[in-house]
Amino acid sequence: MSDSKDSFPESEKAGVYRAIYQRRDMRHFLPDPLDEALIEKLLSAAHAAPSVGYMQPWRILRIRARATREALHGLVEKERQTTAKALGKRSDEFMQLKVQGILDCGEVWVVSLMEARERHLFGRRTMPQMDLASASCAIQNLWLAARAEGVGVGWVSLFEPEDLRSLLGMPDGADPIAILCIGQVPEFYDQPMLAKEGWAQRGDLNDYVMLDAWDEDKAIRAQQQWETTDE
Amino acid sequence: MSDSKDSFPESEKAGVYRAIYQRRDMRHFLPDPLDEALIEKLLSAAHAAPSVGYMQPWRILRIRARATREALHGLVEKERQTTAKALGKRSDEFMQLKVQGILDCGEVWVVSLMEARERHLFGRRTMPQMDLASASCAIQNLWLAARAEGVGVGWVSLFEPEDLRSLLGMPDGADPIAILCIGQVPEFYDQPMLAKEGWAQRGDLNDYVMLDAWDEDKAIRAQQQWETTDE
Repeated sequence: MSDSKDSFPESEKAGVYRAIYQRRDMRHFLPDPLDEALIEKLLSAAHAAPSVGYMQPWRILRIRARATREALHGLVEKERQTTAKALGKRSDEFMQLKVQGILDCGEVWVVSLMEARERHLFGRRTMPQMDLASASCAIQNLWLAARAEGVGVGWVSLFEPEDLRSLLGMPDGADPIAILCIGQVPEFYDQPMLAKEGWAQRGDLNDYVMLDAWDEDKAIRAQQQWETTDE
Repeated sequence: MSDSKDSFPESEKAGVYRAIYQRRDMRHFLPDPLDEALIEKLLSAAHAAPSVGYMQPWRILRIRARATREALHGLVEKERQTTAKALGKRSDEFMQLKVQGILDCGEVWVVSLMEARERHLFGRRTMPQMDLASASCAIQNLWLAARAEGVGVGWVSLFEPEDLRSLLGMPDGADPIAILCIGQVPEFYDQPMLAKEGWAQRGDLNDYVMLDAWDEDKAIRAQQQWETTDE
Protein backbone atom coordinates (compact mmCIF):
# COMPACT_ATOMS: atom_id res chain seq x y z
CA MET A 1 0.00 0.00 0.00
CA SER A 2 1.25 3.46 -0.75
CA ASP A 3 1.32 5.81 2.19
CA SER A 4 -1.93 7.58 2.99
CA LYS A 5 -1.92 11.24 1.93
CA ASP A 6 -2.67 12.17 5.53
CA SER A 7 0.09 10.15 7.16
CA PHE A 8 2.77 11.91 9.22
CA PRO A 9 6.43 12.26 8.19
CA GLU A 10 8.54 9.30 9.35
CA SER A 11 10.11 11.02 12.37
CA GLU A 12 6.72 12.13 13.70
CA LYS A 13 5.28 8.68 13.13
CA ALA A 14 8.26 7.20 14.96
CA GLY A 15 7.52 9.50 17.91
CA VAL A 16 3.98 8.18 18.19
CA TYR A 17 5.08 4.53 18.17
CA ARG A 18 7.96 5.24 20.53
CA ALA A 19 5.59 6.84 23.04
CA ILE A 20 3.23 3.87 22.73
CA TYR A 21 5.98 1.28 23.26
CA GLN A 22 8.14 3.11 25.81
CA ARG A 23 5.29 4.36 27.99
CA ARG A 24 5.40 2.69 31.39
CA ASP A 25 3.17 2.60 34.45
CA MET A 26 5.77 4.17 36.76
CA ARG A 27 6.15 3.50 40.49
CA HIS A 28 9.54 5.09 41.16
CA PHE A 29 9.86 8.88 41.08
CA LEU A 30 12.28 11.71 41.79
CA PRO A 31 10.91 14.58 43.86
CA ASP A 32 11.78 17.34 41.34
CA PRO A 33 8.85 19.65 40.62
CA LEU A 34 7.48 19.97 37.10
CA ASP A 35 7.52 23.23 35.21
CA GLU A 36 4.08 24.92 35.04
CA ALA A 37 4.28 25.26 31.24
CA LEU A 38 4.84 21.52 30.97
CA ILE A 39 1.93 20.81 33.29
CA GLU A 40 -0.28 22.95 31.07
CA LYS A 41 0.83 20.94 28.02
CA LEU A 42 -0.06 17.66 29.75
CA LEU A 43 -3.44 18.96 30.88
CA SER A 44 -4.22 20.19 27.36
CA ALA A 45 -3.24 16.83 25.88
CA ALA A 46 -5.66 15.08 28.23
CA HIS A 47 -8.42 17.57 27.43
CA ALA A 48 -8.01 16.87 23.68
CA ALA A 49 -9.31 13.33 24.18
CA PRO A 50 -12.37 11.95 22.41
CA SER A 51 -15.54 11.68 24.45
CA VAL A 52 -18.83 9.94 23.91
CA GLY A 53 -21.40 12.50 22.70
CA TYR A 54 -18.63 15.08 23.28
CA MET A 55 -19.53 15.17 26.99
CA GLN A 56 -15.95 15.67 28.25
CA PRO A 57 -16.65 13.86 31.53
CA TRP A 58 -13.16 14.21 33.04
CA ARG A 59 -12.39 16.45 36.01
CA ILE A 60 -8.82 16.75 37.25
CA LEU A 61 -7.91 17.67 40.83
CA ARG A 62 -4.31 18.80 41.29
CA ILE A 63 -3.28 17.96 44.83
CA ARG A 64 -0.74 20.45 46.16
CA ALA A 65 -1.38 20.30 49.90
CA ARG A 66 1.06 17.94 51.59
CA ALA A 67 -1.52 16.80 54.14
CA THR A 68 -3.94 15.80 51.38
CA ARG A 69 -1.20 13.90 49.58
CA GLU A 70 -0.40 12.03 52.77
CA ALA A 71 -4.07 11.24 53.30
CA LEU A 72 -4.23 9.83 49.75
CA HIS A 73 -1.20 7.72 50.51
CA GLY A 74 -2.99 6.42 53.59
CA LEU A 75 -6.06 5.41 51.57
CA VAL A 76 -3.92 3.53 49.08
CA GLU A 77 -1.92 1.76 51.76
CA LYS A 78 -5.15 0.65 53.44
CA GLU A 79 -6.56 -0.78 50.21
CA ARG A 80 -3.23 -2.43 49.41
CA GLN A 81 -3.50 -4.45 52.61
CA THR A 82 -7.12 -5.37 51.91
CA THR A 83 -6.35 -6.40 48.33
CA ALA A 84 -3.41 -8.50 49.53
CA LYS A 85 -5.69 -10.43 51.89
CA ALA A 86 -8.24 -10.97 49.10
CA LEU A 87 -5.53 -12.31 46.77
CA GLY A 88 -4.94 -15.41 48.87
CA LYS A 89 -1.98 -17.42 47.60
CA ARG A 90 -0.49 -14.51 45.64
CA SER A 91 -0.73 -12.20 48.64
CA ASP A 92 2.98 -12.22 49.57
CA GLU A 93 4.03 -11.72 45.98
CA PHE A 94 1.64 -8.77 45.69
CA MET A 95 2.98 -7.13 48.84
CA GLN A 96 6.50 -7.22 47.38
CA LEU A 97 5.44 -4.89 44.59
CA LYS A 98 5.90 -1.22 45.19
CA VAL A 99 2.54 0.02 43.98
CA GLN A 100 2.76 3.75 44.42
CA GLY A 101 5.07 6.70 44.46
CA ILE A 102 2.50 9.12 45.85
CA LEU A 103 4.80 10.52 48.50
CA ASP A 104 7.78 10.98 46.16
CA CYS A 105 6.51 12.24 42.82
CA GLY A 106 6.42 15.85 41.61
CA GLU A 107 2.66 16.00 41.06
CA VAL A 108 -0.35 14.04 42.28
CA TRP A 109 -3.61 14.39 40.36
CA VAL A 110 -6.95 12.77 41.05
CA VAL A 111 -9.08 12.15 37.96
CA SER A 112 -12.81 11.91 38.45
CA LEU A 113 -15.89 11.51 36.32
CA MET A 114 -18.14 14.56 36.57
CA GLU A 115 -21.46 14.55 38.40
CA ALA A 116 -24.85 14.65 36.62
CA ARG A 117 -23.81 12.35 33.79
CA GLU A 118 -27.17 10.64 33.47
CA ARG A 119 -28.62 13.18 31.08
CA HIS A 120 -25.90 12.51 28.51
CA LEU A 121 -27.57 9.78 26.46
CA PHE A 122 -25.67 10.07 23.16
CA GLY A 123 -23.73 6.79 22.86
CA ARG A 124 -24.55 5.92 26.46
CA ARG A 125 -28.19 4.84 26.57
CA THR A 126 -27.29 1.15 26.62
CA MET A 127 -23.70 1.61 27.85
CA PRO A 128 -23.48 4.35 30.47
CA GLN A 129 -19.93 3.27 31.30
CA MET A 130 -18.71 4.93 28.08
CA ASP A 131 -17.97 8.02 30.20
CA LEU A 132 -15.20 6.04 31.90
CA ALA A 133 -13.94 4.98 28.47
CA SER A 134 -13.64 8.65 27.46
CA ALA A 135 -11.85 9.68 30.64
CA SER A 136 -9.46 6.74 30.18
CA CYS A 137 -8.59 7.99 26.69
CA ALA A 138 -7.81 11.37 28.27
CA ILE A 139 -5.43 9.70 30.73
CA GLN A 140 -3.78 7.73 27.92
CA ASN A 141 -3.23 11.00 26.00
CA LEU A 142 -1.59 12.47 29.09
CA TRP A 143 0.49 9.33 29.60
CA LEU A 144 1.86 9.35 26.05
CA ALA A 145 2.54 13.11 26.02
CA ALA A 146 4.33 12.77 29.36
CA ARG A 147 6.49 9.94 27.98
CA ALA A 148 7.47 12.11 25.02
CA GLU A 149 8.48 14.80 27.52
CA GLY A 150 10.51 12.27 29.53
CA VAL A 151 8.04 12.45 32.41
CA GLY A 152 6.68 9.38 34.18
CA VAL A 153 3.05 8.64 35.07
CA GLY A 154 1.61 5.94 37.33
CA TRP A 155 -2.12 5.17 37.50
CA VAL A 156 -3.12 4.01 40.98
CA SER A 157 -6.57 2.44 41.43
CA LEU A 158 -5.99 0.96 44.88
CA PHE A 159 -8.49 2.97 46.91
CA GLU A 160 -12.07 2.98 48.11
CA PRO A 161 -13.85 5.54 45.91
CA GLU A 162 -16.13 6.53 48.77
CA ASP A 163 -13.18 7.41 51.03
CA LEU A 164 -11.54 9.46 48.29
CA ARG A 165 -14.80 11.28 47.54
CA SER A 166 -15.14 12.17 51.16
CA LEU A 167 -11.50 13.30 51.50
CA LEU A 168 -11.77 15.69 48.54
CA GLY A 169 -15.30 16.97 49.15
CA MET A 170 -16.67 15.44 45.98
CA PRO A 171 -20.44 15.23 45.39
CA ASP A 172 -22.14 11.83 45.28
CA GLY A 173 -22.50 11.76 41.51
CA ALA A 174 -18.79 12.31 40.85
CA ASP A 175 -16.75 9.10 40.58
CA PRO A 176 -13.00 9.17 41.12
CA ILE A 177 -11.19 6.74 38.82
CA ALA A 178 -7.49 7.42 39.26
CA ILE A 179 -4.79 8.78 41.49
CA LEU A 180 -2.06 9.77 39.05
CA CYS A 181 1.56 10.06 40.16
CA ILE A 182 3.40 12.30 37.72
CA GLY A 183 6.99 13.43 37.65
CA GLN A 184 10.64 12.95 36.83
CA VAL A 185 11.84 9.37 37.17
CA PRO A 186 15.28 7.83 37.77
CA GLU A 187 14.78 5.80 34.58
CA PHE A 188 11.95 4.30 32.56
CA TYR A 189 11.64 0.54 33.03
CA ASP A 190 12.81 -1.37 29.96
CA GLN A 191 9.66 -3.48 30.21
CA PRO A 192 6.43 -3.18 32.20
CA MET A 193 7.15 -3.39 35.91
CA LEU A 194 4.68 -6.25 36.46
CA ALA A 195 6.39 -8.24 33.69
CA LYS A 196 9.84 -7.52 35.16
CA GLU A 197 8.66 -8.70 38.56
CA GLY A 198 7.09 -11.85 37.13
CA TRP A 199 3.49 -11.00 38.04
CA ALA A 200 2.35 -11.70 34.46
CA GLN A 201 3.69 -11.57 30.91
CA ARG A 202 2.37 -9.94 27.79
CA GLY A 203 0.25 -12.45 25.87
CA ASP A 204 0.78 -13.41 22.24
CA LEU A 205 -1.13 -10.86 20.13
CA ASN A 206 -2.46 -13.63 17.90
CA ASP A 207 -4.51 -14.97 20.80
CA TYR A 208 -6.22 -11.59 21.29
CA VAL A 209 -7.44 -11.18 17.72
CA MET A 210 -10.39 -13.26 16.54
CA LEU A 211 -11.95 -13.49 13.10
CA ASP A 212 -15.65 -12.78 12.49
CA ALA A 213 -16.88 -14.38 15.73
CA TRP A 214 -15.81 -15.25 19.24
CA ASP A 215 -13.08 -17.92 19.27
CA GLU A 216 -13.04 -19.75 22.57
CA ASP A 217 -9.78 -21.59 21.82
CA LYS A 218 -8.01 -18.26 21.49
CA ALA A 219 -9.81 -16.88 24.53
CA ILE A 220 -8.51 -19.78 26.59
CA ARG A 221 -4.96 -19.39 25.31
CA ALA A 222 -4.99 -15.66 26.10
CA GLN A 223 -5.90 -16.60 29.67
CA GLN A 224 -3.12 -19.19 29.97
CA GLN A 225 -0.40 -16.91 31.26
CA TRP A 226 -2.70 -16.40 34.24
CA GLU A 227 -3.48 -20.06 34.61
CA THR A 228 0.23 -20.73 34.92
CA THR A 229 1.28 -17.74 37.01
CA ASP A 230 -1.73 -18.23 39.30
CA GLU A 231 -0.64 -21.65 40.54
CA MET B 1 12.98 23.68 33.41
CA SER B 2 15.66 22.03 31.32
CA ASP B 3 14.47 19.15 29.19
CA SER B 4 14.23 15.78 30.90
CA LYS B 5 17.06 13.42 29.94
CA ASP B 6 14.44 10.95 28.73
CA SER B 7 12.47 13.35 26.53
CA PHE B 8 12.13 12.65 22.80
CA PRO B 9 13.78 14.72 20.05
CA GLU B 10 11.59 17.64 18.94
CA SER B 11 10.25 16.02 15.75
CA GLU B 12 9.18 12.87 17.61
CA LYS B 13 7.58 14.94 20.35
CA ALA B 14 5.77 16.95 17.68
CA GLY B 15 4.41 13.71 16.24
CA VAL B 16 2.90 12.72 19.57
CA TYR B 17 1.15 16.07 20.04
CA ARG B 18 0.05 16.18 16.41
CA ALA B 19 -1.58 12.74 16.75
CA ILE B 20 -3.29 13.87 19.97
CA TYR B 21 -4.65 17.09 18.45
CA GLN B 22 -5.44 15.88 14.93
CA ARG B 23 -7.05 12.58 15.94
CA ARG B 24 -10.75 12.61 15.09
CA ASP B 25 -13.71 10.35 15.73
CA MET B 26 -14.38 9.67 12.05
CA ARG B 27 -17.77 8.96 10.45
CA HIS B 28 -16.92 9.29 6.75
CA PHE B 29 -14.77 6.63 5.10
CA LEU B 30 -13.48 5.51 1.73
CA PRO B 31 -13.88 1.81 0.91
CA ASP B 32 -10.17 1.14 0.18
CA PRO B 33 -8.83 -1.90 2.03
CA LEU B 34 -5.96 -1.53 4.49
CA ASP B 35 -2.66 -3.26 4.00
CA GLU B 36 -2.20 -6.30 6.29
CA ALA B 37 1.17 -5.02 7.53
CA LEU B 38 -0.48 -1.78 8.60
CA ILE B 39 -3.28 -3.68 10.35
CA GLU B 40 -0.67 -5.63 12.28
CA LYS B 41 0.98 -2.36 13.36
CA LEU B 42 -2.33 -1.00 14.63
CA LEU B 43 -3.15 -4.21 16.50
CA SER B 44 0.30 -4.22 18.10
CA ALA B 45 -0.09 -0.60 19.16
CA ALA B 46 -3.38 -1.45 20.88
CA HIS B 47 -1.84 -4.49 22.56
CA ALA B 48 0.97 -2.32 24.01
CA ALA B 49 -1.55 -0.51 26.23
CA PRO B 50 -1.29 -0.43 30.01
CA SER B 51 -3.66 -2.69 31.92
CA VAL B 52 -4.68 -2.92 35.54
CA GLY B 53 -2.74 -5.75 37.19
CA TYR B 54 -1.39 -6.46 33.66
CA MET B 55 -4.57 -8.40 32.89
CA GLN B 56 -4.76 -7.36 29.19
CA PRO B 57 -8.56 -7.60 29.13
CA TRP B 58 -9.06 -6.60 25.47
CA ARG B 59 -10.21 -9.02 22.78
CA ILE B 60 -10.49 -7.80 19.19
CA LEU B 61 -12.83 -9.37 16.63
CA ARG B 62 -12.02 -8.50 13.03
CA ILE B 63 -15.23 -8.65 11.05
CA ARG B 64 -14.59 -9.68 7.46
CA ALA B 65 -17.89 -11.34 6.52
CA ARG B 66 -20.15 -8.88 4.70
CA ALA B 67 -23.30 -10.38 6.22
CA THR B 68 -21.94 -9.86 9.74
CA ARG B 69 -21.00 -6.28 8.94
CA GLU B 70 -24.51 -5.65 7.66
CA ALA B 71 -25.98 -7.19 10.79
CA LEU B 72 -23.79 -4.87 12.92
CA HIS B 73 -25.06 -1.94 10.89
CA GLY B 74 -28.61 -3.07 11.61
CA LEU B 75 -27.96 -3.19 15.37
CA VAL B 76 -26.54 0.33 15.32
CA GLU B 77 -29.38 1.73 13.25
CA LYS B 78 -31.90 0.21 15.67
CA GLU B 79 -30.20 1.76 18.69
CA ARG B 80 -29.86 5.07 16.87
CA GLN B 81 -33.65 5.26 16.56
CA THR B 82 -34.14 4.30 20.20
CA THR B 83 -31.60 6.84 21.41
CA ALA B 84 -33.23 9.54 19.27
CA LYS B 85 -36.59 8.91 20.94
CA ALA B 86 -34.97 9.01 24.38
CA LEU B 87 -33.31 12.35 23.61
CA GLY B 88 -36.59 14.23 23.43
CA LYS B 89 -36.10 17.80 22.26
CA ARG B 90 -32.69 17.11 20.71
CA SER B 91 -33.99 14.10 18.81
CA ASP B 92 -34.16 15.73 15.35
CA GLU B 93 -30.74 17.27 15.75
CA PHE B 94 -29.33 13.88 16.74
CA MET B 95 -30.87 12.16 13.73
CA GLN B 96 -29.12 14.65 11.41
CA LEU B 97 -25.74 13.38 12.55
CA LYS B 98 -24.23 10.61 10.52
CA VAL B 99 -23.10 8.36 13.35
CA GLN B 100 -21.43 5.50 11.59
CA GLY B 101 -19.55 4.47 8.52
CA ILE B 102 -19.83 0.74 9.18
CA LEU B 103 -20.91 -0.11 5.65
CA ASP B 104 -18.23 2.01 3.95
CA CYS B 105 -15.00 1.65 5.89
CA GLY B 106 -12.09 -0.68 5.10
CA GLU B 107 -12.16 -2.58 8.38
CA VAL B 108 -14.71 -3.16 11.14
CA TRP B 109 -13.47 -4.42 14.49
CA VAL B 110 -15.46 -5.23 17.61
CA VAL B 111 -13.58 -4.73 20.86
CA SER B 112 -14.72 -6.70 23.87
CA LEU B 113 -13.67 -7.25 27.43
CA MET B 114 -12.64 -10.84 28.06
CA GLU B 115 -14.71 -13.30 30.06
CA ALA B 116 -13.73 -14.49 33.57
CA ARG B 117 -12.43 -11.13 34.74
CA GLU B 118 -13.63 -11.49 38.31
CA ARG B 119 -10.53 -13.30 39.53
CA HIS B 120 -8.30 -10.36 38.56
CA LEU B 121 -8.32 -8.40 41.82
CA PHE B 122 -5.12 -6.37 41.47
CA GLY B 123 -6.27 -2.73 41.22
CA ARG B 124 -9.88 -3.87 40.77
CA ARG B 125 -11.14 -5.03 44.15
CA THR B 126 -13.00 -1.77 44.78
CA MET B 127 -13.18 -0.68 41.12
CA PRO B 128 -13.86 -3.64 38.84
CA GLN B 129 -14.55 -1.24 35.97
CA MET B 130 -10.79 -0.63 35.62
CA ASP B 131 -10.79 -3.38 32.98
CA LEU B 132 -12.79 -1.05 30.74
CA ALA B 133 -10.30 1.72 31.48
CA SER B 134 -7.46 -0.52 30.25
CA ALA B 135 -9.27 -1.54 27.08
CA SER B 136 -10.04 2.12 26.40
CA CYS B 137 -6.34 2.97 26.63
CA ALA B 138 -5.73 0.22 24.05
CA ILE B 139 -8.27 1.81 21.72
CA GLN B 140 -6.71 5.24 22.23
CA ASN B 141 -3.28 3.79 21.31
CA LEU B 142 -4.79 2.38 18.14
CA TRP B 143 -6.56 5.67 17.40
CA LEU B 144 -3.36 7.72 17.67
CA ALA B 145 -1.23 5.25 15.71
CA ALA B 146 -3.89 5.19 12.99
CA ARG B 147 -3.91 9.00 12.83
CA ALA B 148 -0.13 9.02 12.39
CA GLU B 149 -0.59 6.56 9.51
CA GLY B 150 -3.28 8.78 7.97
CA VAL B 151 -5.99 6.25 8.79
CA GLY B 152 -9.32 7.19 10.37
CA VAL B 153 -11.04 5.47 13.30
CA GLY B 154 -14.59 5.90 14.61
CA TRP B 155 -15.74 4.43 17.91
CA VAL B 156 -19.43 3.47 17.77
CA SER B 157 -21.20 2.66 21.03
CA LEU B 158 -24.77 2.77 19.73
CA PHE B 159 -25.80 -0.85 20.21
CA GLU B 160 -27.37 -3.23 22.70
CA PRO B 161 -24.47 -5.28 24.10
CA GLU B 162 -26.70 -8.33 24.45
CA ASP B 163 -27.62 -8.27 20.75
CA LEU B 164 -24.00 -7.91 19.73
CA ARG B 165 -22.94 -10.74 22.03
CA SER B 166 -25.53 -12.97 20.52
CA LEU B 167 -24.61 -12.01 16.93
CA LEU B 168 -20.93 -12.85 17.45
CA GLY B 169 -21.34 -15.92 19.66
CA MET B 170 -19.73 -14.28 22.67
CA PRO B 171 -19.97 -15.91 26.11
CA ASP B 172 -21.97 -14.20 28.86
CA GLY B 173 -18.93 -12.90 30.73
CA ALA B 174 -17.48 -11.09 27.69
CA ASP B 175 -18.64 -7.49 27.33
CA PRO B 176 -18.43 -5.75 23.96
CA ILE B 177 -17.51 -2.07 24.32
CA ALA B 178 -16.92 -0.78 20.80
CA ILE B 179 -17.60 -1.22 17.14
CA LEU B 180 -14.59 0.40 15.49
CA CYS B 181 -14.76 1.68 11.93
CA ILE B 182 -11.23 1.88 10.54
CA GLY B 183 -10.00 2.97 7.15
CA GLN B 184 -8.96 5.56 4.64
CA VAL B 185 -10.95 8.79 4.86
CA PRO B 186 -11.70 11.56 2.35
CA GLU B 187 -10.22 14.04 4.83
CA PHE B 188 -9.79 14.44 8.56
CA TYR B 189 -12.25 16.95 10.06
CA ASP B 190 -10.50 20.18 11.06
CA GLN B 191 -12.35 20.02 14.38
CA PRO B 192 -14.38 17.32 16.13
CA MET B 193 -17.46 16.44 14.10
CA LEU B 194 -19.84 17.09 17.01
CA ALA B 195 -18.31 20.56 17.47
CA LYS B 196 -18.60 21.30 13.74
CA GLU B 197 -22.22 20.26 13.79
CA GLY B 198 -22.97 22.36 16.86
CA TRP B 199 -23.88 19.46 19.16
CA ALA B 200 -21.45 20.74 21.84
CA GLN B 201 -18.22 22.70 22.11
CA ARG B 202 -14.98 21.94 23.87
CA GLY B 203 -15.05 23.43 27.35
CA ASP B 204 -12.46 25.83 28.76
CA LEU B 205 -9.68 23.69 30.25
CA ASN B 206 -9.50 25.92 33.30
CA ASP B 207 -12.98 24.76 34.34
CA TYR B 208 -11.88 21.11 34.28
CA VAL B 209 -8.88 21.50 36.59
CA MET B 210 -9.49 21.94 40.32
CA LEU B 211 -7.01 22.61 43.09
CA ASP B 212 -6.74 20.32 46.13
CA ALA B 213 -10.47 19.66 46.47
CA TRP B 214 -13.68 19.56 44.47
CA ASP B 215 -14.66 23.01 43.19
CA GLU B 216 -18.38 23.17 42.52
CA ASP B 217 -18.19 26.58 40.80
CA LYS B 218 -15.86 25.12 38.20
CA ALA B 219 -17.96 21.97 37.94
CA ILE B 220 -20.98 24.08 37.13
CA ARG B 221 -19.12 26.15 34.54
CA ALA B 222 -17.82 23.00 32.85
CA GLN B 223 -21.43 21.88 32.48
CA GLN B 224 -22.58 25.22 31.05
CA GLN B 225 -21.98 24.44 27.40
CA TRP B 226 -24.57 21.71 27.90
CA GLU B 227 -26.96 23.93 29.77
CA THR B 228 -26.95 26.28 26.81
CA THR B 229 -26.91 23.76 23.97
CA ASP B 230 -29.56 21.65 25.70
CA GLU B 231 -32.23 24.34 25.52
